[in-house]
Amino acid sequence: MIVIMQPGASEAQIDHVIERIGQLGLTPHVSKGQFRTVIGAVGDKQPAHQHILESLEGVDRVVPIMRPFKLASREFHADNSVVNVCGVPIGGPGLTIIAGPCAVEDEPMLRRIATACKARGAVILRGGAYKPRTSPYDFQGLGQDGLKILRQVGDELRMPIVSEVLSAGEVELVGKYVDMFQVGARNMQNFYLLKEVGDTGKPVLLKRGMAASIRELLMSAEYILARGNRNVVLCERGIKTFETEVRFTLDVSCVPVAKHESHLPIIVDPSHAAGKRHLVGPLALAGIAAGADGVIVEVHDRPEEALCDGPQALLPDMLGELADQIAKVGAALGRSMVK
Amino acid sequence: MIVIMQPGASEAQIDHVIERIGQLGLTPHVSKGQFRTVIGAVGDKQPAHQHILESLEGVDRVVPIMRPFKLASREFHADNSVVNVCGVPIGGPGLTIIAGPCAVEDEPMLRRIATACKARGAVILRGGAYKPRTSPYDFQGLGQDGLKILRQVGDELRMPIVSEVLSAGEVELVGKYVDMFQVGARNMQNFYLLKEVGDTGKPVLLKRGMAASIRELLMSAEYILARGNRNVVLCERGIKTFETEVRFTLDVSCVPVAKHESHLPIIVDPSHAAGKRHLVGPLALAGIAAGADGVIVEVHDRPEEALCDGPQALLPDMLGELADQIAKVGAALGRSMVK
Amino acid sequence: MIVIMQPGASEAQIDHVIERIGQLGLTPHVSKGQFRTVIGAVGDKQPAHQHILESLEGVDRVVPIMRPFKLASREFHADNSVVNVCGVPIGGPGLTIIAGPCAVEDEPMLRRIATACKARGAVILRGGAYKPRTSPYDFQGLGQDGLKILRQVGDELRMPIVSEVLSAGEVELVGKYVDMFQVGARNMQNFYLLKEVGDTGKPVLLKRGMAASIRELLMSAEYILARGNRNVVLCERGIKTFETEVRFTLDVSCVPVAKHESHLPIIVDPSHAAGKRHLVGPLALAGIAAGADGVIVEVHDRPEEALCDGPQALLPDMLGELADQIAKVGAALGRSMVK
Amino acid sequence: MIVIMQPGASEAQIDHVIERIGQLGLTPHVSKGQFRTVIGAVGDKQPAHQHILESLEGVDRVVPIMRPFKLASREFHADNSVVNVCGVPIGGPGLTIIAGPCAVEDEPMLRRIATACKARGAVILRGGAYKPRTSPYDFQGLGQDGLKILRQVGDELRMPIVSEVLSAGEVELVGKYVDMFQVGARNMQNFYLLKEVGDTGKPVLLKRGMAASIRELLMSAEYILARGNRNVVLCERGIKTFETEVRFTLDVSCVPVAKHESHLPIIVDPSHAAGKRHLVGPLALAGIAAGADGVIVEVHDRPEEALCDGPQALLPDMLGELADQIAKVGAALGRSMVK
Repeated sequence: MIVIMQPGASEAQIDHVIERIGQLGLTPHVSKGQFRTVIGAVGDKQPAHQHILESLEGVDRVVPIMRPFKLASREFHADNSVVNVCGVPIGGPGLTIIAGPCAVEDEPMLRRIATACKARGAVILRGGAYKPRTSPYDFQGLGQDGLKILRQVGDELRMPIVSEVLSAGEVELVGKYVDMFQVGARNMQNFYLLKEVGDTGKPVLLKRGMAASIRELLMSAEYILARGNRNVVLCERGIKTFETEVRFTLDVSCVPVAKHESHLPIIVDPSHAAGKRHLVGPLALAGIAAGADGVIVEVHDRPEEALCDGPQALLPDMLGELADQIAKVGAALGRSMVK
Repeated sequence: MIVIMQPGASEAQIDHVIERIGQLGLTPHVSKGQFRTVIGAVGDKQPAHQHILESLEGVDRVVPIMRPFKLASREFHADNSVVNVCGVPIGGPGLTIIAGPCAVEDEPMLRRIATACKARGAVILRGGAYKPRTSPYDFQGLGQDGLKILRQVGDELRMPIVSEVLSAGEVELVGKYVDMFQVGARNMQNFYLLKEVGDTGKPVLLKRGMAASIRELLMSAEYILARGNRNVVLCERGIKTFETEVRFTLDVSCVPVAKHESHLPIIVDPSHAAGKRHLVGPLALAGIAAGADGVIVEVHDRPEEALCDGPQALLPDMLGELADQIAKVGAALGRSMVK
Repeated sequence: MIVIMQPGASEAQIDHVIERIGQLGLTPHVSKGQFRTVIGAVGDKQPAHQHILESLEGVDRVVPIMRPFKLASREFHADNSVVNVCGVPIGGPGLTIIAGPCAVEDEPMLRRIATACKARGAVILRGGAYKPRTSPYDFQGLGQDGLKILRQVGDELRMPIVSEVLSAGEVELVGKYVDMFQVGARNMQNFYLLKEVGDTGKPVLLKRGMAASIRELLMSAEYILARGNRNVVLCERGIKTFETEVRFTLDVSCVPVAKHESHLPIIVDPSHAAGKRHLVGPLALAGIAAGADGVIVEVHDRPEEALCDGPQALLPDMLGELADQIAKVGAALGRSMVK
Repeated sequence: MIVIMQPGASEAQIDHVIERIGQLGLTPHVSKGQFRTVIGAVGDKQPAHQHILESLEGVDRVVPIMRPFKLASREFHADNSVVNVCGVPIGGPGLTIIAGPCAVEDEPMLRRIATACKARGAVILRGGAYKPRTSPYDFQGLGQDGLKILRQVGDELRMPIVSEVLSAGEVELVGKYVDMFQVGARNMQNFYLLKEVGDTGKPVLLKRGMAASIRELLMSAEYILARGNRNVVLCERGIKTFETEVRFTLDVSCVPVAKHESHLPIIVDPSHAAGKRHLVGPLALAGIAAGADGVIVEVHDRPEEALCDGPQALLPDMLGELADQIAKVGAALGRSMVK
């Protein structure tokens, strides 16, 4: 940590900062310039120290040196982590396609769509049973019945399943059915939920919040890792910006930045970012080209009957075409497909 | 709802849209221009219809006409609502000051600070017992012990208390102690939590998410109102923007926009937006001048010992000065102080 | 400047950084922690040095200590500057109201509106002769004819006039007519234009770009100041965010931050931020309460006939009411009105 | 255009809107719902009409139907446009690599870097002679001397050259040297400059402003097209968001959205978006995968001596590697390389 004093800071203020640094168990290094004094605090461990020093009089600002996350960092684990979802890897040399409908509507519908997805290259099945909806008047999902259908169809097709869990209180129930938890963007900083899925040890697909910095995403991963669960897969799904042509702006730079900072796998969700079917393919390919380990996309065979997010759902044949392109772009960059 | 067709939409596509509008129980009104056809769908009730129509081929976009919230709207309730927190009103002619430390650290500390706040004009006591922290290594609050201290000190000083509840599963426990729930920015779209605090009927301070639009804030209020709880107070606390001189950009326009669209009271939280003590006063006054019904501010008498957010905490005398200024600015705009 | 090395930086890399710091005429201060080495570079003057050091191998990042602007800073000039626009001060104890139509449409219209504005408290007249329009098909202003009308009416009413100059090549022409140049948000980083208005010595109203940080605004002011022109008035007019209920989000925190960092006067433009008439008043008052030295607002007596921005124009009587409220809020905060 | 009335709009207000629509030469189509009246205005041509109707009493909002740009739209020109820069195409089946240093520093340096770039696949040479710098104290470019060097080296290597023009007044001078004008992000809405480069007929590389929506980018292209110059190449170079790990957030969705809306070629500039060398490659590939027609990247062989933007400059061999990857990813998507 580095403490930068205000231009007119008094000697007493400087001395007080030095004293407090010592009380915190850190070693102060003072460097006086013509206009300002800068004090290094060597040995910092707790981010909370930053706020304490920032509160002192005469302090202009405090610059942290160490990253606030540890278990998620490359410094802690140099090699790429590979998360195993019931035999399907995410984060290794291969690219992983996760697909399925936005919401589980009924069993025949899910079986039809899942079969179509599998035939076109998807290796993990997604489907929402509990839906976080902006409006209380929208379809909220089938709940446990949806999970049962998902489990049934996943078993039939031998596809691991991933589904969203909305609350710490439902982790146990949802965990009985799914192979991988999804923590949605709106819950990225629901710290109880993070701890709870952390305790299960099961794979977690952690979506970036729509206003979360990449660093905050990694801090949320740290919550899960800190409970001893190493099976975290990050997911970039678009952030809020001033642009209105898309629902969210897919931040592809999140992929190489996260890869640089962290050993965790990362995939992209182009469906929620785009909000429109014809944009899903280009954004998925952009994510792969930027280094993502896979994609998660929404598919529906009758989008105009979909109970949610029909406009962004790919038709099955569009998924087939996209999977082909992902395979080709991946091959161009030295990556195979997970089958 | 208005459906705008693509420029080259075929007659068959137009007919299909008209047919679907009819199936949804709406009446179609077709208007053909030189380049495009526009189809009104009169009688729309469910927002979900928008997505169904957007999924149809040949459709360029769908423009909703009605607002997606009802109980929160001025159309539903023309007069300003006043929320009563154990005798202290928010939203009437008076301005309400809520103050206290970021976190409850121990009983003497809370008593000392609360007494100082009350003496300087605060009429509701705030204090965190459960703290949502970005880092798993930061202080997470005293939990139930913190609530007990808060209750004890609130009773001694006859100040109603407000404290954050982080999860649906803790609503019952927290509700035993607090007079008003706070739903934090990170939980604004934790829909389970919204429903649960909605069921209690107790006042709820609903903070705007840092990436939530004003409309989304009102939709979250709608979740609480739809459970029969009319005691919702909105709170603008800053949104994420590209500006880095402040932690969050206080969006004062949220105040007049929310007042125009909704009957619910709204206050501002300048402490979290500013992140720095010297900016809290100007932002608090800006909120009041824009029409807010009060402020919630963090106060600490020994900020450099604070376990969280020391740099943004006002010293008690700064609160006193601010309360004076709020009273004067409020009087200039025809508002009194709640005492 | 502080250079933070990467965790695994080699001794050779550290030595090279130290050597380069010396070559740049700076003194290195090395501080080795358990994981990282941090090197202070004392005596930094040119911001360019930051990029040079960032380019070196083994460097994680470089933290500048000094602010990149000088003449605009409080360190350079501790007291508030007051800009004198032909006898009308901006930045002193009084609050200054600038008002007028978006565009000069014709002479009778301007005389009518200017007279109405003056009668209601405006002391400087605004009006656009050259309009920057997003669409090439929109009304682009009357040009020099508009300036002549503005000069004529300003003289008749003894009101100084401010009008936008769009290009360095027109500074001389526009300068023959106006008492104060306006540099618009889209030109805040048109550095040729900044230098040119800097050379005139005339007052400049410098609007913040809609994506410019407060620091960038002050850097743009520095361009003008560096040409020897001290008559710069800053103007916050709203930034781009994800919120769509307003055209731009008025960043009131810009006011206290700029006041803290700089001695320059600052006013707010609520009209362009709001985009809607009924929001102009609350935002203007918010700016004043946050410490602004005045407001600039658009007024039209027949908004539905306005050639631009009719929906955000105040009616003359709304200006009267707002001016009263500004006077009252200002008085509450110890400020008078400039008359 | 569609006019949506407020819920309580009176008959007189509705009649006045209908009357005004007629006066504007449009045909009104009235549709009365249970709560609101909606009035279509068929035959709209001028965007300005929107503001006139928005100004009328009782109007809630006005929804435009037609896009505000014409010549830039796919409706006007269905096939992809190809811009020819002295024999080098941008926008056809091939991918175009533009490379060179941030700034022209001297002739040997430019010759060295340009030769290295050409050997590694670049077909157009970039280099700044006039630099827009945030700080007045930074290196501002060699000016006309830089252009001469650029022309000299471009001729030697038979590479067309592109360089930034900062002001309408310099278009003639810069046009004597360059084969393609660059209009920078800070000048995207410098409408005088747009008109002036429009009048030359020469190719223009139009960079998206860092706060400009895709629609605004296309409106700025429209300014150039409306002067009869069809040789416009769009460039996505990153927008301002809350994320601080990168200088700007490369908005890859701009590529497929612009391709969908417009026939104009579009390339990406990953260097300015990333701000860091190691992120340039992944972002460049993301842009190509999303459908871009090429990239523009900064290259320097001695980045620590660069006079500007050294940290983001690729080393020549990094360009070589990137060009190989672009060729492979392009081939995977059916695109060749322009040579």
